[in-house]
Amino acid sequence: MRASPAARPDAIRRHNLALVLDHIHRDGALTRAQLTQRLEVSRSTMGALVADLIELGLVEEVVPTGGSGVGRPSHVVVPHKAGPYVVAIDIDVTQVVTAAVGIGGSVLARTVVRASGEITDPVKIAKLAADLVVQVGGDSGRPGGPVGIGVSIPGTIDRANQRVAVAPNLEWRDVAFVDLLADRLPSFAKIVIGNDADLAVLAEHRRGASRQVDDMVFLLGRVGVGAGIIAGGRPLHGWDGHAGEIGHNVVDPDGPPCHCGKRGCLETYIGERALLILAGRPQPPSDAATAAVFADARRGDDEALAAVRKVADSLGRAIADLVNTLNPQLVMLGGFLSELMGIARPEIESALARFALQAPGQTVQLAHPSFGADAALFGAAEVAFAELLSDPLGATAGAAR
Amino acid sequence: MRASPAARPDAIRRHNLALVLDHIHRDGALTRAQLTQRLEVSRSTMGALVADLIELGLVEEVVPTGGSGVGRPSHVVVPHKAGPYVVAIDIDVTQVVTAAVGIGGSVLARTVVRASGEITDPVKIAKLAADLVVQVGGDSGRPGGPVGIGVSIPGTIDRANQRVAVAPNLEWRDVAFVDLLADRLPSFAKIVIGNDADLAVLAEHRRGASRQVDDMVFLLGRVGVGAGIIAGGRPLHGWDGHAGEIGHNVVDPDGPPCHCGKRGCLETYIGERALLILAGRPQPPSDAATAAVFADARRGDDEALAAVRKVADSLGRAIADLVNTLNPQLVMLGGFLSELMGIARPEIESALARFALQAPGQTVQLAHPSFGADAALFGAAEVAFAELLSDPLGATAGAAR
Repeated sequence: MRASPAARPDAIRRHNLALVLDHIHRDGALTRAQLTQRLEVSRSTMGALVADLIELGLVEEVVPTGGSGVGRPSHVVVPHKAGPYVVAIDIDVTQVVTAAVGIGGSVLARTVVRASGEITDPVKIAKLAADLVVQVGGDSGRPGGPVGIGVSIPGTIDRANQRVAVAPNLEWRDVAFVDLLADRLPSFAKIVIGNDADLAVLAEHRRGASRQVDDMVFLLGRVGVGAGIIAGGRPLHGWDGHAGEIGHNVVDPDGPPCHCGKRGCLETYIGERALLILAGRPQPPSDAATAAVFADARRGDDEALAAVRKVADSLGRAIADLVNTLNPQLVMLGGFLSELMGIARPEIESALARFALQAPGQTVQLAHPSFGADAALFGAAEVAFAELLSDPLGATAGAAR
Repeated sequence: MRASPAARPDAIRRHNLALVLDHIHRDGALTRAQLTQRLEVSRSTMGALVADLIELGLVEEVVPTGGSGVGRPSHVVVPHKAGPYVVAIDIDVTQVVTAAVGIGGSVLARTVVRASGEITDPVKIAKLAADLVVQVGGDSGRPGGPVGIGVSIPGTIDRANQRVAVAPNLEWRDVAFVDLLADRLPSFAKIVIGNDADLAVLAEHRRGASRQVDDMVFLLGRVGVGAGIIAGGRPLHGWDGHAGEIGHNVVDPDGPPCHCGKRGCLETYIGERALLILAGRPQPPSDAATAAVFADARRGDDEALAAVRKVADSLGRAIADLVNTLNPQLVMLGGFLSELMGIARPEIESALARFALQAPGQTVQLAHPSFGADAALFGAAEVAFAELLSDPLGATAGAAR
């Protein structure tokens, strides 16, 4: 973990400051002894690094209360309570969730705007998002604006030019959402966008319970369905950022029409609309409508339970294809698929066992997200923090602090 | 590319020797000037490194004939003509191909044993393979035995213990093929086994035309079908080595029975047996039988052409799923699928366009393997050479040379 001794002293210091801050961010609180051990540096070097980060207003040292009382209490390095924050925005078809997030992942302020119908117009969403950035920034209790803004999009991102390539369920094609949002913000902050499932798996891999898992898939089910993939410990984005779009793998070419223009896509079998239609409730998807189906299924309503089980069976088969293709150690089911697994895990596992090759099918684990419904939101916070975390000294240079 | 200056001098030298040898191996021939530029070292350092490799008997310097005659001719560093070799063995259901391969990929000797029926017994195959190792070693014209043996297997490999987990079309389950082979060899050489598609994509990525392509899939179609994946420039093996088994993704649960025990697996639609059955020739698969279908299709035979087109359509749909999931820049079609593309590329591309999401579907390129039918064989040579290439000094220490 040490910087190469051949690097210039200033570069070493910057690199090590970034490492320390990243450890604090990912763990939330660490003693100097823990940090010294992790970075394999001397205690005096670590002392200087922590002092630097304190001076930059990024971390502070606290003495935990309730210690054993024996010996000198161990100081703990934690994110500074008046430190920088980012704004994370999770845009989905049915709602927009916005949060001000501090280093370490603390949620300083959070707001949810539910769509009465379905929100789709990119300009309207950009205006709403800009207002929400200001609102959660004000509610955060932190001085100044965010140091970064991260936006989760239910669609594919053209990574080279940071545009939304296609978000079928929003009916967006080649939308310059970063520009639309930047134009409506009162002050400058770098904006980064990402695919919702990619961001969700990033958050879980960096800060969730599965941070030791190097081969995992986050299957995010909302109105649309997509997969975020970590392979060999690294995000798999594909050649130009479109990997993980398994929601548009065709299950049956004669199946139901999909927003992408094709028929019988996987998300017409395991998306929220599919659940509602199978439950005999062909209404616009919403959290309330989905929750009602789950509540009825838990009460034993035949039609609701049959719908849940049918989706679970299709889901298990879809996971089997992912398992055959990617051989992940862990598949995390997020969005409404998490609660679906809470009701119909046996049906999912039965289909997975029937359709996956034996070896990878037997070893893969299914799991709920550590961050529940907020995985994509926290992933948006991660990419918004990326610049600060990769170079705390450079990112804070010239900042009014 | 330079070793860290902080490393011990001996470690630097070993590391740089490995780098130089790897460049020679991958390119076949490079001038000292090219090597000096690639490694970013001084000319004198490169001179010493090349001298070391010459002394180890791994490379030699030659003066190319047919130069312009102006100025001093530029010496070219090439693999030593009496240097070490490996034996690569490509085991498939219909045949066993064995080759002695030198540094740089030169084939020194090669033999093909076709199965009269289908070869399946692992002990018989191990005995055959051991005999072939001796045979091609003798035919190679090189002194001594191979420095490594690489074996391509049409099945999944348990990477932790180097056993064949399952090779459905050979009907192998948990076979310790490395031990079976080692017990029958006259002298010691390290044996490494790998999945055929994994090895094929490795060969193409390391030494083929697509060495600059960091996101690619090699779809290998023989009796079985599997995918070798390079993602972000690195092989994707999955958690315990079973990634890429897309041949057992279920297309239709009511489809034809598969050797894996399930029904309707992809390889029952795009494998060699599928082609023969569709062409009305339900015989044991063999290169000759497949070649006859292709010859008839090229002549315009209706049934053969319809079979080829039907497989092409299913293949295009399968590629679409891979494209949606992995967003590769390139999909290489190997085995009999390469010739299939030669006849029915429009059908493959049409299905791909219909079934893939627009953005990744439009950008992906389809290609024939650089190494033709020998991609998996050359991949087996790569893994057999891995130890020598990663540490030429250590691997040759104590060798009788």
